[in-house]
Amino acid sequence: MTRVFNFSPGPATLPEAVLRRAADEMLDWHGCGMSVMEMSHRGKDFMSIFAETESLARELLAVPANYKVLFMQGGALGENAIVPMNLIGRTGKADYVVTGDWSKKSLKEAGKYGAARIAASGDASNFTAIPKQSEWKLDPAASYVHICSNETIGGVEYHWTPDTGSTPLVADMSSNIMSRPIDVSRYGVIYAGAQKNMGPSGVTLVIVRDDLLGHALPITPSAFNYQVQAENESMYNTPPTYAIYIAGLVYQHIKASGGLAAMEKHNAQKAALLYDFLDESRFFTNKVAKADRSLMNVTFWLKDAALDDEFVKGAQARGMVQLKGHRSVGGMRASIYNAMPAEGVKALVAYMKDFEARHA
Amino acid sequence: MTRVFNFSPGPATLPEAVLRRAADEMLDWHGCGMSVMEMSHRGKDFMSIFAETESLARELLAVPANYKVLFMQGGALGENAIVPMNLIGRTGKADYVVTGDWSKKSLKEAGKYGAARIAASGDASNFTAIPKQSEWKLDPAASYVHICSNETIGGVEYHWTPDTGSTPLVADMSSNIMSRPIDVSRYGVIYAGAQKNMGPSGVTLVIVRDDLLGHALPITPSAFNYQVQAENESMYNTPPTYAIYIAGLVYQHIKASGGLAAMEKHNAQKAALLYDFLDESRFFTNKVAKADRSLMNVTFWLKDAALDDEFVKGAQARGMVQLKGHRSVGGMRASIYNAMPAEGVKALVAYMKDFEARHA
Repeated sequence: MTRVFNFSPGPATLPEAVLRRAADEMLDWHGCGMSVMEMSHRGKDFMSIFAETESLARELLAVPANYKVLFMQGGALGENAIVPMNLIGRTGKADYVVTGDWSKKSLKEAGKYGAARIAASGDASNFTAIPKQSEWKLDPAASYVHICSNETIGGVEYHWTPDTGSTPLVADMSSNIMSRPIDVSRYGVIYAGAQKNMGPSGVTLVIVRDDLLGHALPITPSAFNYQVQAENESMYNTPPTYAIYIAGLVYQHIKASGGLAAMEKHNAQKAALLYDFLDESRFFTNKVAKADRSLMNVTFWLKDAALDDEFVKGAQARGMVQLKGHRSVGGMRASIYNAMPAEGVKALVAYMKDFEARHA
Repeated sequence: MTRVFNFSPGPATLPEAVLRRAADEMLDWHGCGMSVMEMSHRGKDFMSIFAETESLARELLAVPANYKVLFMQGGALGENAIVPMNLIGRTGKADYVVTGDWSKKSLKEAGKYGAARIAASGDASNFTAIPKQSEWKLDPAASYVHICSNETIGGVEYHWTPDTGSTPLVADMSSNIMSRPIDVSRYGVIYAGAQKNMGPSGVTLVIVRDDLLGHALPITPSAFNYQVQAENESMYNTPPTYAIYIAGLVYQHIKASGGLAAMEKHNAQKAALLYDFLDESRFFTNKVAKADRSLMNVTFWLKDAALDDEFVKGAQARGMVQLKGHRSVGGMRASIYNAMPAEGVKALVAYMKDFEARHA
């Protein structure tokens, strides 16, 4: 068995130790005689897994007591509708800050449920920068302000927390949650698909402040109603049990590795290896404003796009896969979430240097 | 490692061969150097897994070409809202046949999206029988007629297919799909959470006839819009990749075991072992009308409920778990889906005989 360095934007690489443990426990979890996949979600074994997973999520993210932690289905794109269904009814309006493809999709979906408007947009920079807060035009009557904290396609990331006053800040953190400490108290709702830093696709972490429960539109499906799920401890419907178990193993791994402060250091070091090289290279370029560069998704372009295929194939031959950029923007993208080891990034930079020397 | 006989109503026991293969492939699927969990859903490896899984679902269920097969999130309780969101807009009305707790929940949820009414109900029999079709009062203007083909709590099952004329029949088949051959062409929509006969919780199979696409209410979330998912081959949002992979392994296992005709025989034999014993027992009783007895969930009551705990504990000591009935009805329930081997049912009947002899 040879494991590759997998730069996929998501679903993404997972800690090998987590996968080994999942394989070991597949037929018989802790001597209970069954797989986690086979457990009744209301049985004591799964309830203990669930409780530990929720507790670890709370601990790692330092979630205050006045927030609920939910594990839901539907992913971030599901949440694009679920968020307005649950929140926009407060005033009928919502503000969206558009910084790339994901926040564009969020905005579009919200329009089905109320007056969703653009409070700020990165379009002037072709989405290579996060609009400064001084340029945001917030509506004091908005039910919430929505941001995407990291755009995986463009590779831009907030390295600061917006101040939206008394209007709740809602963040799609799918692609940078658990990559560094955050101050949850600055947010009304945080949601994140698991498939970058937390586990397999199919489970969505939702953190919601207590006072935002109970405002759902009447057309909100019960399974996607935050209050219903909060009252039922995420078990109004059968939760995605195995995905939650894997997320729990990932949380254990993060905790054992030093928690989110250690992740932040690890991720900053990995990203610096790539960005420092990109800044000195005459062959590869990154287009993102330095202050807004994503530590999770490093986008770059070759001087000559005709060499893209050769670059990708050469990488693959060296055990580095999924480097092709999103089809909407082209170029390359190295997604280097928590579970990407520094060795993977070093191998990539070494290959890029070599490729440049051969083609410059 | 000792595996138990797991009679859980769902998530439920899976074929041991499937779990072994999943464990073997956990770190490196077919030499690609990564786990299925880590694969980009748009990469060629996962696309091949997805295509094979869909193809097997079509083959096993003999799905006609004018139906789409979708893999979605949200489970059957999610579908309770997703179905009316997608279908009720055709006329604003829908008929529901209520045969137990699950169809009651479906009805209640549909009321959020239109005029959902009861066309027939098993309440006169306290939900121990499926109302005869001659008693159904169907509204010709209904957008669809909804049934639950097997009620896991009461243990009643349709052993016939309703004739709803030109009104599309919609069935929640979560708990008996893949347990026997069905004629898909008699249905407009079939949906089923995977966690009984198909795999882990977190993925929902939806089979929808082409002419029923395109009628979604404007408030339908894109991620739960059948047409959007059909156009995007279930990948408008990131699908629950690992759950789909396991479902595919289960489908392969069913096919290698002789397909749904073999499952039907296997399930009928297992259920007969239990029902035959219940009919002759003076200590245990089943309350369901003989014609409507579920082959998946066999409910039974001890003569003296004070012995319930002793019965459950004794079973557990013999490696038989999750036999307690649903809290709303009490008694016992043996869920004996496809993956429950005949040996498990024989062991249970032997234990019941012994228990009866000791307490009669």
